[in-house]
Amino acid sequence: MLKGKKQIMKARVTVSLKIDVLDPQGKAILNALNNLTFNNVRSVRQGKIFDIILNENDIKAAKEQLEAICEKLLVNTVIENYHIEFLS
Amino acid sequence: MLKGKKQIMKARVTVSLKIDVLDPQGKAILNALNNLTFNNVRSVRQGKIFDIILNENDIKAAKEQLEAICEKLLVNTVIENYHIEFLS
Repeated sequence: MLKGKKQIMKARVTVSLKIDVLDPQGKAILNALNNLTFNNVRSVRQGKIFDIILNENDIKAAKEQLEAICEKLLVNTVIENYHIEFLS
Repeated sequence: MLKGKKQIMKARVTVSLKIDVLDPQGKAILNALNNLTFNNVRSVRQGKIFDIILNENDIKAAKEQLEAICEKLLVNTVIENYHIEFLS
């Protein structure tokens, strides 16, 4: 591959609340479901995904960059966990 | 297994905008990243996940129920796609 010509990488970042953190939005959905006759639903917790496309050849460099992106912008690490996976 | 005693199933519902639908929130994140020196990021699209625990023995019944939950409450099927996966 030519130097300077970078490949496209697709990644999915999944952000979810830490297990101890209350999720009022999930609780509201749970109540709504129980009222809608879905009585066997026990728990709902909501999270976010970010599908990110970036130009990078090296998967290790891409992972480091995505970690930096998560820590700086996407994730509140006090209350949230994140997980990075590459889709291609 | 005793009748009436139902197993716990964990599922993750992933909701993402259809490919043709504009994602202003994702675009805002992309601009922020490009300003934060992450210049090789090409696209960001945001979506949602719902981690749902329900009492059900039959995986087919659970899937049908989750589909009904998605169609009735969680997903705007005009602009969003959803995907159901079982975690255990």
